Amino acid sequence: MNSRRDFLQKVSLGIGVTALSGLPALSCSTNSDGKQDKQLRVAIMGLGGYANIVAKGMQECKLAKITGVISGTPSKVETWKKQYGIPDKNVYNYENISQLKDNPDIDLVYVITPNSLHHKHVLQVAAAGKHVICEKPIADNAKQAKEMIDACAKAGVKFYIGYRLHFEPHTRELIRMREAGEFGKVMHVNNYAGFKIGDPTQWRLKKALAGGGAMMDVGVYSLNGARYCTGEEPIWVTAQESKTDTVKFKDVDETVTFQLGFPSGIIANCGCTYNFNHVENLKLMGEKGWAELNPAFGYGPIKGVTHLGPIDQPDVNHQAYQMDGIAESILNNKPDPNVTGQEGLKDMIVVDAVYESLRKGGAKVFINKS
Amino acid sequence: MNSRRDFLQKVSLGIGVTALSGLPALSCSTNSDGKQDKQLRVAIMGLGGYANIVAKGMQECKLAKITGVISGTPSKVETWKKQYGIPDKNVYNYENISQLKDNPDIDLVYVITPNSLHHKHVLQVAAAGKHVICEKPIADNAKQAKEMIDACAKAGVKFYIGYRLHFEPHTRELIRMREAGEFGKVMHVNNYAGFKIGDPTQWRLKKALAGGGAMMDVGVYSLNGARYCTGEEPIWVTAQESKTDTVKFKDVDETVTFQLGFPSGIIANCGCTYNFNHVENLKLMGEKGWAELNPAFGYGPIKGVTHLGPIDQPDVNHQAYQMDGIAESILNNKPDPNVTGQEGLKDMIVVDAVYESLRKGGAKVFINKS
Repeated sequence: MNSRRDFLQKVSLGIGVTALSGLPALSCSTNSDGKQDKQLRVAIMGLGGYANIVAKGMQECKLAKITGVISGTPSKVETWKKQYGIPDKNVYNYENISQLKDNPDIDLVYVITPNSLHHKHVLQVAAAGKHVICEKPIADNAKQAKEMIDACAKAGVKFYIGYRLHFEPHTRELIRMREAGEFGKVMHVNNYAGFKIGDPTQWRLKKALAGGGAMMDVGVYSLNGARYCTGEEPIWVTAQESKTDTVKFKDVDETVTFQLGFPSGIIANCGCTYNFNHVENLKLMGEKGWAELNPAFGYGPIKGVTHLGPIDQPDVNHQAYQMDGIAESILNNKPDPNVTGQEGLKDMIVVDAVYESLRKGGAKVFINKS
Repeated sequence: MNSRRDFLQKVSLGIGVTALSGLPALSCSTNSDGKQDKQLRVAIMGLGGYANIVAKGMQECKLAKITGVISGTPSKVETWKKQYGIPDKNVYNYENISQLKDNPDIDLVYVITPNSLHHKHVLQVAAAGKHVICEKPIADNAKQAKEMIDACAKAGVKFYIGYRLHFEPHTRELIRMREAGEFGKVMHVNNYAGFKIGDPTQWRLKKALAGGGAMMDVGVYSLNGARYCTGEEPIWVTAQESKTDTVKFKDVDETVTFQLGFPSGIIANCGCTYNFNHVENLKLMGEKGWAELNPAFGYGPIKGVTHLGPIDQPDVNHQAYQMDGIAESILNNKPDPNVTGQEGLKDMIVVDAVYESLRKGGAKVFINKS
């Protein structure tokens, strides 16, 4: 991808790239083949669809590489071993995770298992003394999220959530403009994320594995987007639900609309669905200007426009950018990007409130900040 | 406006124009100068900003013309008399409305007074035996709306609401496509209407004259749009409010978000504001396709795009189209377009529910269809 290389090139030259929201600008010493001498060695846990996307993306990484896998499916392991040159000694299953602690070739485990297993798996990885990235949503609820943060702190390992969009250049530019006051006071946000889900047998439609439906999965994009569009934390939540297919969605939510009230008076009016397409946009309305990302949340290309015109940023591989960004912090002991467990917890507090509002028939739920 | 002439030309030739939603395709016999022999003779009540826009638009009408005014401001009357050739005998004030009944040169009164006066004025016009168009919102609440409908029925006069978009070609095409099933089952609607209001002394910011704020005014566009996007009547409503300027908006609502639940399971997630710009869009998501109007609610040009591409319809003068459409029904005794008092009442039932939800802190309000 030329555009990504161009961007990295700019980064290493310090041109036009600014650190945002605690995210350090990428910089590193590289050797003759463009790879840094030291790389973050990553084991992937859970070899499903998204793990494949991450692994493919990581082939573009300069600062991170795949060195191991954790899986319960031997056939998948064989494929991955061949594809990514993983030695037998770096292959684990769900019964021997604790043995990771004796493996000097794995620095970090990327947990890409079904949502409801995140809590258990992150605790196991932390106990094995490895850093961890956990795919979003962080957990089933805020209580689990806090336990995961505490466990990682106690074990002295770093804990990140796979918020790839925090590394995505159009999204970062929108945040930069908002922080620089280019939209003036933010007045309103209107975000939608969703798609029509396929295979009715998949784990995402089973509450015991997914923790919830559209809200727990794609709803987190709308919600996280509302938080980075405002730079505030919501103080109240209302939510509404629609279920038109009671067979496919008997176990989880199908379509949820939710509103977040922020301290400055901003309302973010959001939605998410598993049952229709053409809903992937983020819109920020300010006193002096506006911004729209559409598509806003997919794997790219992200497209954006503001009152000043199109957002002119490169298309990048989201997964590679995320992994290099996190590796940069760990390898060079730099400030963490804004994708730590705390960011996951902040979203999960709101997700809890959304489900509470739904249980209470749409009642306004106030968020206790304590 | 060539585009409008082109469109009327198409109408008279019967090309590409279909009757929608009970709205008859325009057709009439015209004489050599393009005017129908008989025209609807209209008196305008209330000579404010929108009355001027209506009067200018009506210069393009074939089936309607301005023959009178009702105003409490002599200086405005003088201007209108000159501009539109109105004789003294067709000039009324708010004290002598009842005398309209003796005037054979006025068929209909278009009430364009502040919202909270609509009820009183429509009752007075009906009592004088004249047909009436009332600007939207129909009234302060559904109770008043019902009284107005009953009074007009009892007086044997026709009663319309100024829903100009029901005559607007892009909007009509969207409704036609929805009715023809081109979007498949409608799954979701997301509408926004609003603008940053200017002059803080205007009647729209006084509850006693406006009946409410953004919701009562521009909110009706979002709401009416949700109804024509779905073809259904909502069964529940939730609403949320934000007030960031408690001086300017001390009397009325500033920004309201509201959700409408429809019998088929569709949620329409809507918003309206008096305190920011760049919020004038309507979005329909269906199982087979989608549509977006943006801008959706202004005086034009309306722009639309669907999954099939841009909506290719002419830009027309909304006010002229509305007046010719209504005149066509009255003069030729044709079925009424879908802009009668009943349509206004249907919106007002929902507006009542929105305000009830706001009073109850966002609680879900079920609409009693009886």
